[in-house]
Amino acid sequence: MTDFTQKTQGPFADIAPALDQLTQQVLFGEVWERRELTKRDRSLVTVAALIAQYRINELPFHLKFAQQNGVTRDELIELITHLAFYAGWPAASTAVGITRKVFAENS
Amino acid sequence: MTDFTQKTQGPFADIAPALDQLTQQVLFGEVWERRELTKRDRSLVTVAALIAQYRINELPFHLKFAQQNGVTRDELIELITHLAFYAGWPAASTAVGITRKVFAENS
Amino acid sequence: MTDFTQKTQGPFADIAPALDQLTQQVLFGEVWERRELTKRDRSLVTVAALIAQYRINELPFHLKFAQQNGVTRDELIELITHLAFYAGWPAASTAVGITRKVFAENS
Amino acid sequence: MTDFTQKTQGPFADIAPALDQLTQQVLFGEVWERRELTKRDRSLVTVAALIAQYRINELPFHLKFAQQNGVTRDELIELITHLAFYAGWPAASTAVGITRKVFAENS
Amino acid sequence: MTDFTQKTQGPFADIAPALDQLTQQVLFGEVWERRELTKRDRSLVTVAALIAQYRINELPFHLKFAQQNGVTRDELIELITHLAFYAGWPAASTAVGITRKVFAENS
Amino acid sequence: MTDFTQKTQGPFADIAPALDQLTQQVLFGEVWERRELTKRDRSLVTVAALIAQYRINELPFHLKFAQQNGVTRDELIELITHLAFYAGWPAASTAVGITRKVFAENS
Repeated sequence: MTDFTQKTQGPFADIAPALDQLTQQVLFGEVWERRELTKRDRSLVTVAALIAQYRINELPFHLKFAQQNGVTRDELIELITHLAFYAGWPAASTAVGITRKVFAENS
Repeated sequence: MTDFTQKTQGPFADIAPALDQLTQQVLFGEVWERRELTKRDRSLVTVAALIAQYRINELPFHLKFAQQNGVTRDELIELITHLAFYAGWPAASTAVGITRKVFAENS
Repeated sequence: MTDFTQKTQGPFADIAPALDQLTQQVLFGEVWERRELTKRDRSLVTVAALIAQYRINELPFHLKFAQQNGVTRDELIELITHLAFYAGWPAASTAVGITRKVFAENS
Repeated sequence: MTDFTQKTQGPFADIAPALDQLTQQVLFGEVWERRELTKRDRSLVTVAALIAQYRINELPFHLKFAQQNGVTRDELIELITHLAFYAGWPAASTAVGITRKVFAENS
Repeated sequence: MTDFTQKTQGPFADIAPALDQLTQQVLFGEVWERRELTKRDRSLVTVAALIAQYRINELPFHLKFAQQNGVTRDELIELITHLAFYAGWPAASTAVGITRKVFAENS
Repeated sequence: MTDFTQKTQGPFADIAPALDQLTQQVLFGEVWERRELTKRDRSLVTVAALIAQYRINELPFHLKFAQQNGVTRDELIELITHLAFYAGWPAASTAVGITRKVFAENS
């Protein structure tokens, strides 16, 4: 499946080239491009998984990427509100703080 | 399946009436009914949070509820495939097993 | 239920004797016996940690042990209701199901 | 149940008003006020859930709130020591670091 | 047990063919075959990740696979004992229970 | 088992002396010294558990300790690449960032 012809390098290329290649070619090159789910749906699902797992370092990138993929700011806030119930208030609280910063930097 | 627009008793009423009331009135009565996010989007987000957190007991209900809310079976499978990368293969593997059963019971 | 003040063998002795010894002597023999926190407080904290981490297999023992240590059934139910907010509804939902069974078996 | 008459605004009001309202009115306005569990017990349980889930951003507030609710500094340290066993040494290690800072800022 | 050097269909092929292909070709076909880490090391690391995340459904397969890859039974028991400290006693307790069963079925 | 004669003080001695003693005497004094698993194996397992649980504060110490115990830099990178699949891409991504810093500080 994987066509290991080089596309572009990603953020892990300097220190973890194999992981970088898997990220660029398999994750972004193949999975995100599959038509079975829209990019907007993939972003909703990805942001939800990051918030639920408290993956604080990866959230800023995916909050911006979600907006590129058509999720509005109001929808991101509502997603966090919804997840307060399904991942707990602390996860939602941290997500609000990160989102506030991401929105401020990009307005 | 329960019609959650009715503010009737839910599954915790026998033993945890306060939690049941919060579930029926706040979570299903208010949050799920808010217009800022469609029910289909809420289901995508909820199922993603459950898979990412390995909440195996709550997944069957929400896989069925997601289908009521307009998520197709193919989309659910694709969501799990996507989450293999964002929550790890073990979480996806367990989600496949549960989904297989839920689909079989309802076909 | 096991009387943990006795430094006898515990449930891991058959297959994991070193872990068993650490459990019986350090965890139950020393830590649970320290006076800086009452056993009732330790049980509240332990049950909370188990629910928040979805440690479903260890919960039945500690729900019973908590009652031995002075936590009432109503307090356990209220603890779960409180944790719905701090660990998410799915964790609380599973805790209710396990607690219902534990209470039924011991009434 | 929820009386959606405004009480006071909380920390999410600027960007997530619905979550803020749920926090102020349902979580703090209702749940924390219920008599079925004392505020001291609720704080023990909340701090335990935060440590066990590695919710590092929410821990400072709840360490201070726990002291307001009657948990002593020695009891907080003992709670962390106990949770080293039930949530793992890394969670306890991080909790010690945060607690050290919180105590230093408030002495 | 499946011989994963063959790029045949795996356990998800019936319902999630894309995930199955990624599993067989990328995860088992490429990653597990990379020389930068021995299979024994990969098994230690995989079993540790499963125990730490309480991935109870995936543990039996990887306990057996670890033995195929040269991890002894005594080493698996010691790994669990070690992880009691790094992932908490409840995770270790569940791992002991699953390991006991896996060993019994294969002796 | 525990010989509570003082060895050396560790990082928690100032504020959590009992936890410090357990850490120095039981965890490092006994468990890490057991022969049933080499220190290199223990480090692989510990680093895997930390990455899988997103224990970001404890990772720098154990990345250095792993190198002392014979795990090479290339093996640490490969371990992270492997865990991208078993703990999810976000956990691996954060581990790469921390590892990059640790390697830079010690070269």
